[in-house]
Amino acid sequence: MVTLFLCLSVLLTLSAAVPTWYLEARQTFIDAEASMRIGAQLTLNPKEQLVNKYMMSLKNSSIQESIWTTKPFSPSISFFESKAWIDNSTLYGVIKMMPKGGILHLHDKAMTSLNWTVKTLTYLPGLYTKLDTDQYSTRLYKFANSSPGADWTLISDLRNASQDPDNFDEMLAVNMSIWTPEPFKTYPSVNDVWGKFRSYFRTINGLINNITNVKAYVEEAIQEFYDDNVQYMELRGGTMIDNNGNDVTEQYLEIIQNAAYNFQSAHPDFYGVKVIIPGSREDSEEGQAKMVNKTLSLMSKFPDLVKGFDLVDQEDINHLTLYYIDEFLKNDQSILPYFFHAGETDWTQGVDMNLVDSVLLNASRIGHGFAVYHHPKVLEAVKAKGIAVELNPISNQVLGLVSDLRNHPGAFLFANGAPVVVSSDDPAAWFASPLSHDFYMAFMGLGSINDDLRVLKQLAMNSFKYSTMTSDEKNEALQNWQILWDTFIDDVIKKYHL
Amino acid sequence: MVTLFLCLSVLLTLSAAVPTWYLEARQTFIDAEASMRIGAQLTLNPKEQLVNKYMMSLKNSSIQESIWTTKPFSPSISFFESKAWIDNSTLYGVIKMMPKGGILHLHDKAMTSLNWTVKTLTYLPGLYTKLDTDQYSTRLYKFANSSPGADWTLISDLRNASQDPDNFDEMLAVNMSIWTPEPFKTYPSVNDVWGKFRSYFRTINGLINNITNVKAYVEEAIQEFYDDNVQYMELRGGTMIDNNGNDVTEQYLEIIQNAAYNFQSAHPDFYGVKVIIPGSREDSEEGQAKMVNKTLSLMSKFPDLVKGFDLVDQEDINHLTLYYIDEFLKNDQSILPYFFHAGETDWTQGVDMNLVDSVLLNASRIGHGFAVYHHPKVLEAVKAKGIAVELNPISNQVLGLVSDLRNHPGAFLFANGAPVVVSSDDPAAWFASPLSHDFYMAFMGLGSINDDLRVLKQLAMNSFKYSTMTSDEKNEALQNWQILWDTFIDDVIKKYHL
Repeated sequence: MVTLFLCLSVLLTLSAAVPTWYLEARQTFIDAEASMRIGAQLTLNPKEQLVNKYMMSLKNSSIQESIWTTKPFSPSISFFESKAWIDNSTLYGVIKMMPKGGILHLHDKAMTSLNWTVKTLTYLPGLYTKLDTDQYSTRLYKFANSSPGADWTLISDLRNASQDPDNFDEMLAVNMSIWTPEPFKTYPSVNDVWGKFRSYFRTINGLINNITNVKAYVEEAIQEFYDDNVQYMELRGGTMIDNNGNDVTEQYLEIIQNAAYNFQSAHPDFYGVKVIIPGSREDSEEGQAKMVNKTLSLMSKFPDLVKGFDLVDQEDINHLTLYYIDEFLKNDQSILPYFFHAGETDWTQGVDMNLVDSVLLNASRIGHGFAVYHHPKVLEAVKAKGIAVELNPISNQVLGLVSDLRNHPGAFLFANGAPVVVSSDDPAAWFASPLSHDFYMAFMGLGSINDDLRVLKQLAMNSFKYSTMTSDEKNEALQNWQILWDTFIDDVIKKYHL
Repeated sequence: MVTLFLCLSVLLTLSAAVPTWYLEARQTFIDAEASMRIGAQLTLNPKEQLVNKYMMSLKNSSIQESIWTTKPFSPSISFFESKAWIDNSTLYGVIKMMPKGGILHLHDKAMTSLNWTVKTLTYLPGLYTKLDTDQYSTRLYKFANSSPGADWTLISDLRNASQDPDNFDEMLAVNMSIWTPEPFKTYPSVNDVWGKFRSYFRTINGLINNITNVKAYVEEAIQEFYDDNVQYMELRGGTMIDNNGNDVTEQYLEIIQNAAYNFQSAHPDFYGVKVIIPGSREDSEEGQAKMVNKTLSLMSKFPDLVKGFDLVDQEDINHLTLYYIDEFLKNDQSILPYFFHAGETDWTQGVDMNLVDSVLLNASRIGHGFAVYHHPKVLEAVKAKGIAVELNPISNQVLGLVSDLRNHPGAFLFANGAPVVVSSDDPAAWFASPLSHDFYMAFMGLGSINDDLRVLKQLAMNSFKYSTMTSDEKNEALQNWQILWDTFIDDVIKKYHL
């Protein structure tokens, strides 16, 4: 610390001697860049300034510690290592309290905490389990009236046989997740971690592929996001094949709609849930065409709920957006908005060309857009057209695209004032909080040293601006959110005696 | 592999059905971006196309392997892990053969291989050694007529006592280097690896801080770079305090000048050595002013050798360029060109503001410029002013700034067609080849999937364009290099039966 203050104080002393013209030219340059940054157009009121000063002092002490000691900066190391530090920090506590607006990039099968999933769903009667033969010893689940096979065991029998049920449950949760203390060893390549990530979906599927369980799962998700101070949710998902092989998508969508409606009725400071239907990049052209038509039909049946179409699954090894282009060109985007995952890759001039199709197809938003910093014309286009890039910093880190989040392309988009929102993608799969951990990373890792409360406020406001709400809904949500925001500011001032 | 070819062939079949207007719009967009990329303005002749096709097939099979299997892509993992794979690859062999032009960012105390250093310098008589008390058990060296102290031992005694001198020597080399099989564990933070990196300079200093040894060291460096097909060198360095505490800078510069002259006389396809004098960011204002004046004096004494001034040492924890601004504003850059290290950091809006000063001080080039992708106005300026960014991909990886080199800011600069050169910084400190490993990373990691031989050719040409040579020297070098290039093309065609 001493070295820094010495350096700064010397600098300040010197400034008088430095030619004014140079300092002015330098400041003009720096200001021109700063004015481009996300949040730069916002002005904080005196109370917000108080909270900002406090948050920036917390941020700065963490930064200074990592500049002057060998303690790594938390966004620079794996979330699996930093999570415990972050959870214990005051700053994280403040970010948890913050009304973060909506979450716009969230997969419905990985949104509810594994703690709840294990403590509730794996305690239901008739649940059988077996270890899969994959390298991760993934545990599969199946509800049945009698044993589905010789290698299947009732989970209750296993739990009863264990010495410590809590410990057993924690082991179940870790087994489901992609969590590992040594990410570089466990997952040397992106394909390794995606292998484990796919096993998460096989596992959760065995627990929620029936209407009763998924209802509880959705209701819990809304509660958990609300408790994390998220006011609105857009889900990638809404489709379901149940454990009997029946397509129960419409029943599932009704469950989501009712769960959201009931929750909103009880909590007027929650603004609802909407759904974007995902097609799979593994699908055939014909299959995709059916999925698009199904989406259009669901949109007319659930006009306030179903809002558009996406393409999901690991981009690197599956079909390009271009593969389905015939189908996609048939639709008017004012009727069927697109929210394609695109550029979730470290490759350039490969599958990242999906970014170009997203732009040309007038996508409403881009999922991840990780590769956008290697595409100057895509950057131009997303800025000109207002196509928001849905950033998921922790997801990209734990799925192996980037190590130090200060190198995450979101930092580049923040610097360029591009339209962005910050989301959490599949937080349950890696024990992240609904949205607060990703907001923490946005503030600390994607944001510059000077990026302050204005960035987080802008992100919250962007989450309404770029949502699928109608403009009336947006205005109302933003007005109501402003009240929550002001309360948050008051609460922080009170709690931390500012 | 099968999956890919299936996917591509389906795509090709489909193309006929896709509306032409869309494919044209898409291609126009893609072409507009591609035309911005480094090397895009070059056209390959038929022979070059043959070599290019071969190199691209090698590159592509490595890329496809990592897309479709769990074998990591070599630029995506630590150089300490990938080096053995790279060294065994045919592609690396081709890149070694390539005339790479000049190296513009190279520190004189870390340019000669540790293998030579250990096998030659540590075999000289009267060399004492002891282990330092630091956490890395750094081995210090001192030449003396009698033991410098109780804890010092003759290295020859240690070597004689060892079971296996070759093994002993290898251990000495590894001890000097920052090499580790587990970089994330050995160096959790940038400050950890910089601690070890600084110890490298303490160690090498004990071996070369006398005129006789440094002469051999410099001569060997030129030979090694020449053998790696580097035709020209610009060194950060040239200053020296010898083991008696005397400033022998002028003698050292004469050694460099003579070594270069003698080598050039014997090898007309080597175009010389020039020197940029480094001041330290640890220095006081007064100290820096003296260093600038010393540089000006050395430039007038060695007008063909000494070409400018730099600021070195770990940027994060030392003085800003602004700290010395009074002194730097005094000089006319047509007389004293600046080559400041700037933006060698993961921080944004901190020490990376040195980039702004480099631009405003009309620096001739920027050392590293790692942070430039977070500075849109700096990008504009380096493009407009033609300030080349000296990229050192492996250095930035092993010194902890970035993990996967596809995320290295050089990839961003390649995409934007910014003026860049690729160098190796301190290759001896991490067992890298003089320049070939970094060129390999430029081709494979910074370059896109489609970036081809044109990128490497452009980098070689840029190394003359942005050098401190006079324009006559540049023209002559470029003409002579073109002959080497054509020979290289012929040699590759012959060697690989293309």
